[in-house]
Formats: sequence, structure tokens, C-alpha cells
Amino acid sequence: MQVDAIDLFYAAMPNVTLAADGSQDALIVRVSAGGYVGWGECEASPLVSIAAFITPRSHGVCQPVAISVIGEQLDSPADIHRISAAVRRNSMDVLQAAHTFSGIEMALWDVLGHARGEPVWKLLGYDKNYPKTPYASLLFGDTPEETLTRGQEWTAKGFQAVKFGWGPFGRDLASDADQLHAAREAIGDARLMVDAGQVWEGNFEAAASRLPLLADAGVTWLEEPFEADAYEQYAALAKLSGTVGIAGGEASHTSGMATNLIRYGGIRFVQIDSGRVGGLAPSKLVADFANSAGVTYVNHTFTSHLALSASLQPFAGLRDSVLCEYPASPSSLGAAIATAPLAITENGEISAPDAPGLGVCVDLEALDPYLQTVDILVNGKQLFQSP
Amino acid sequence: MQVDAIDLFYAAMPNVTLAADGSQDALIVRVSAGGYVGWGECEASPLVSIAAFITPRSHGVCQPVAISVIGEQLDSPADIHRISAAVRRNSMDVLQAAHTFSGIEMALWDVLGHARGEPVWKLLGYDKNYPKTPYASLLFGDTPEETLTRGQEWTAKGFQAVKFGWGPFGRDLASDADQLHAAREAIGDARLMVDAGQVWEGNFEAAASRLPLLADAGVTWLEEPFEADAYEQYAALAKLSGTVGIAGGEASHTSGMATNLIRYGGIRFVQIDSGRVGGLAPSKLVADFANSAGVTYVNHTFTSHLALSASLQPFAGLRDSVLCEYPASPSSLGAAIATAPLAITENGEISAPDAPGLGVCVDLEALDPYLQTVDILVNGKQLFQSP
Repeated sequence: MQVDAIDLFYAAMPNVTLAADGSQDALIVRVSAGGYVGWGECEASPLVSIAAFITPRSHGVCQPVAISVIGEQLDSPADIHRISAAVRRNSMDVLQAAHTFSGIEMALWDVLGHARGEPVWKLLGYDKNYPKTPYASLLFGDTPEETLTRGQEWTAKGFQAVKFGWGPFGRDLASDADQLHAAREAIGDARLMVDAGQVWEGNFEAAASRLPLLADAGVTWLEEPFEADAYEQYAALAKLSGTVGIAGGEASHTSGMATNLIRYGGIRFVQIDSGRVGGLAPSKLVADFANSAGVTYVNHTFTSHLALSASLQPFAGLRDSVLCEYPASPSSLGAAIATAPLAITENGEISAPDAPGLGVCVDLEALDPYLQTVDILVNGKQLFQSP
Repeated sequence: MQVDAIDLFYAAMPNVTLAADGSQDALIVRVSAGGYVGWGECEASPLVSIAAFITPRSHGVCQPVAISVIGEQLDSPADIHRISAAVRRNSMDVLQAAHTFSGIEMALWDVLGHARGEPVWKLLGYDKNYPKTPYASLLFGDTPEETLTRGQEWTAKGFQAVKFGWGPFGRDLASDADQLHAAREAIGDARLMVDAGQVWEGNFEAAASRLPLLADAGVTWLEEPFEADAYEQYAALAKLSGTVGIAGGEASHTSGMATNLIRYGGIRFVQIDSGRVGGLAPSKLVADFANSAGVTYVNHTFTSHLALSASLQPFAGLRDSVLCEYPASPSSLGAAIATAPLAITENGEISAPDAPGLGVCVDLEALDPYLQTVDILVNGKQLFQSP
């Protein structure tokens, strides 16, 4: 079959705030090929990613993403690898291209899975699909009391692992201690993770000074203490971090960025957003590398269950990578994207769907209230119009 | 003073081809502040970079570049550093933001230089401005004969160094040998560099097999044999490369990417495009690091003399970094951007202008035939209209 069409849907909440909540808008991708339809989701600025799809070319390796995908043959995983290589080459100098293509690549796998009647994790080379323990991914409350309430709420729902991040964390040592005490008190024996969200902006001492607090609170990992490419700082912190693992990698827009963070940064957990890294095949590359290096692969997912299913596929077959980021309180938009959320079992576990493709349906009608119309014209000629 | 306005001008040749010629279009930035005007140039996809400037926000760290710059105080280098940090934070998840901001940052330095009556290289901390030897940056001909003619043409003009790149190079070993012979024959004793443009797509053996040919031709450096983050491959090739230095770094969109390539990749020449890496201050960071590591800093410039002046500033004060990429045959657009090109002295040398700011004037009237009009609307509301 051939890639007949790619449609990009930009959806957003009526009021997008400055909160660290990535589910406030979305760029949903629909790929049509040979009568099949596949879906994907970019974890990216929707408008900028649309522009990278249709931009006029600047030169031979600064071309729009669309020209490397539309009309291409799609009959096997090798075709997806070939298309990905073409995007990397032809759009080498379009920085945003990796974000744009990530959602498209997912949708290509979804199409292929539907055509073959097989789940994507099988197409990626796994023969088993191990369940994961979802962790509720939450923002710190503005106060320790809010954090306490939030943590109690989610462990009461059966979650055995909780991550708090962003909000006020990282700005004041005493306040961080209070926040961590509240978090641990709230969730009892459950597993606790902390996401710093690059808050220290390269200040190594600020990061290092939190390690004793994190160890006291029994934190499994400290996530993203530094900018994505600060390998030397990552490695230095990892040497001091004792029982607290260092985690990172969500900003990777190539598999190489993530494997370098493992190789040079000393992280114990590598977190990949399949909606940024170039899709599922680059995520699988990272998963394989992490596994061989004794590093635990974890998905980075803060939006919909479409993104959640996609993000589970690349490490479905890794038995020892047991944790899965679970978008615990997405916006109403984030909740509306997939018609049926991935079920959590009585054991409190979650798995990639054992269904063709990504096993997730997208309900365009449910998305309708959130859809944004985009018009991009160059010299009066319409290059993009929302479908 | 305050940043009063930022205008983005998208210019393009009437026919943008697939050649590896980055001067076929341009994104020119004009910053107005306190009655002064500064200019900069992004080395980037213009439309995508414009979109990153005005995109609706997605969340707290996925905001348009504009909001971190317009209206900000601009009285000192510290203000530019503060604005840059704000862009990195507020636009963390807008991948294209670094490309967009690079031209803006240049223009901020240009404004500040005009306000203070000082060249930017002084504002960056240098007290001397060492002349550089420009190398003519050329594309390989389709045939060795074309390469021969092209090389002869540019050494006849007095260039003491020439770089050939892209075109057919890297696809066939025998043809590469012929091309390298032709290049060396053409330029006599002049310095010769070769740019592989990532042509081998990760095939290490393909790259390594060219080393003897390059050594025979007395090549100073082999540039970009691999993708920007393939540090392990870079390091392995550097171990084998003998007299041929390995060069890379042009794709860096943070200073950290470039310093990592030095730290882990074993390169001998680090090539920075100030129009991509985030502007002049990150370029200067890389220059300082390279200098301390015994690595030679070189600019990456293939477009205009505005970009050329900007790219010279960050290493003007490094006496031992003597080579400078010189856009030898830009498009008529590339030639039209700056009203007066940077002069080459009788010694065949070139320097950053000893004039306020970047010392380059942009002629909007000369650009007029090339200007593209861009309209971007979201929900019918115009977010960008070409100035």
C-alpha cells in the first residue's frame, strides 16, 4: 500500500495556562494508506510542527517533512525505517522535523499493524508483552498540604507508584523538604519519584543539595535535574546520588541523544517520549540499548491514552522495565482523544493493547469542541488548511 | 532601553532547488530598541522559525519565543544572557526555538553595540580582533573536471584555503579519489578541506575507507562524517584519522551539543553556526571551551555577510583560530542582504568589522524582490503577517 494522506489535527483547551500540564493541547496525526487508518500524537508545539510539515523547502536537506512520507510505499517495518531515514536526511536542517515526524511515525506503525492484524509491539520485534506498573504522574501542589491531598487521592485509587514534579519544587530547600515529607506521608509504602523539570538551570550545587532529602524520602529517581545535554553534570550528580537514581531523556529528539545520556551521563532510568524522539523505532533502539546497559527504560507520557499506548509499545517486551508513566489527571481534551482508556487490571498493572496496531481509537467527534483551525499562507498561497 | 519590536523578514530566491546551497532563502531579523536598530539572521527554515516566534502556547515551558523578548530591558550583555535564559526556559519544548532565537540574539547584540558605539566582539569580552584566513566554501562539481575548474577559479581570486563538500562526494570510493585529486590539483599548495555532509548515514566503514584518500590529498579536515550526536563514531574515526582532523558541530542548537562533541567525539575543529546554536553568546561559550581544550573553533557560514560578520564575533579574539568559512558563491539573495561585503585585505585576510555592533547594514530595498509574504492564522485570528 501507499501513504495516501496525512492529516494533522490541532486541538486545544479553551484556556491554555502556564501550568506544567502538557495535556492542554495536542497535535493528532491521521495517516491513511491502502484503506487503513492509523493514528499518532506529537508531543510538541502543534503550530510549529504543522509548519515543519508543509514549509517551503530551503535547500536539499531543509525540506518539509511531508515530501518524504506522502505517496511512499508502506508494506513492512523496513518501509517505515526507510521513510524515517529519508525524513532525517531531507529535513536535516528543519529542527522541528523530529517532533512533527514522531506522531506520523506512530501512525505509520498503527496502519501497518491494522493491515497485518498485529499489535505494533510484535512488529517492533517483541514476542511477549509484559505488564507494567503505572505511576500516577502528578504536579506538586502549591503547598505541602495540597501535595498530601493529591498523593492520598491517587494511592486511594490503587496506584502503587506516584511521581510528583514541577510546581514549587526546587526553589527553596526547606520548602522542598516539606513537600517531600508530605509526598511520602501521603503515599505510604508506594514508590515515589520526583521530577525537577530542569528547575536549577545548570546550578549543580542546588541539585546536589536535594539528594539527602530525596534519599530520606525514599525516592526512586530524581528526574531531569539539568538540561538534556548536560552529560557531565548528570554524571557528577549520579556519582553522589546513592540510593536515588538519576533519570532523564525526555527531551531527546534523536535516539542518539538518549543513548549518549546513558553512555556519558550515568543515568539509571532513561525516559523517552515517543512523540518527540522520532517515533516508535527510535524509542525501541533506546530501549534495546538501555536494556543492554542495565538501565531501566521508562516512557514519558503526560497526555492521552493514544500517546500512552504508543509509548508502551517500544518497551512492551522488556520484562525488567516495569514502570510506566501514566497520565493521571489530563485535561478534558487529553481524556477525549482516545475513545477507551487503557484499562488498569485488578493487580494495578497496565499493558500495551493486545490488538492490531496501537489498539486505540480516536474519536474525532469528541475532539470537535477542541479543534483549532490553522491557515498558513506564503505569498497568498495556502500551504496548510485544517482538515 | 527596551525591546520595542522584532520583525522577521522571509526572503527567498524565485526558484529554490535541491542543491546543498543554504543561501537560497533567509530569515532576517530586525530588532528595534530605544531608537536603535539591530540585525540578525537565522540559519533555519524561515516559515518554521516564524511559527516558533508566534505560536500559541502549549503550557508553561512551551511558549512562543516572542514573549520572552519583546518588551524586555536591554542595557547590557547581562540583559541578553537573561533574555536567552528566559527563552531556553519558556520555550524548552518548542524544538525550533533555538533556530528562531539565534537571529534575534545576534540582533540584540547589534543593537547594544550601536547604543554603546562598540563592536560586538568587545561586548563579548575580547580586547583584540585577530584577522582570519577565509576559506572559499564550495560544492564539489558533478564531475572532477567541474571541481578542478571551480578550485582554480577561487585560488586565482587569491583564496589560500578552499573547502569542497556535498555534491557527489561520499557515494563511490573511486569517484571520491578522482574528486580529491582534482581538488588538490586545482588549488596547488592552498589548504584543502572536505565536507561530507553526513552522507554516510552512520556507516562507519564508508567514512573510514575515505581516510587514506583524504590523507593523500593533504586534507586539513573531514567535516561532518556522521550525524551530530554520533559521538562514539566521531571518536572512533578520530582515532584512525592521522593527519586528517575530524570536524563537526554545525548542527548544534545548544552550546552543550558542541562542547559534548569536543569532549566525547575527539574532533579537532568545532564548527559553529551562530544562526542555529542560539546566537553569539553560546557561540562564545563554545569558542572558550574549544580554546581551553586545544580544539580549533571555526564558524559555519554559507549565506550572507551579515551572517559572516555575526559568525566572526565569537572567535575574533582567538589568535590561534585562524580559519574562517567564507560564503564564496552565495545566491543573488545571499549577496543582497548586506549592503557592503566584508573586505578581504591584500594579505588575503578578513576580520570582524571594527565598527559598532555587527558593523553591517541591511538594505531592505535590495531585499524587496526576494521578500515572501507569510500569513499565519489560528481560528481566523492573524498571528503573523509579514512586515
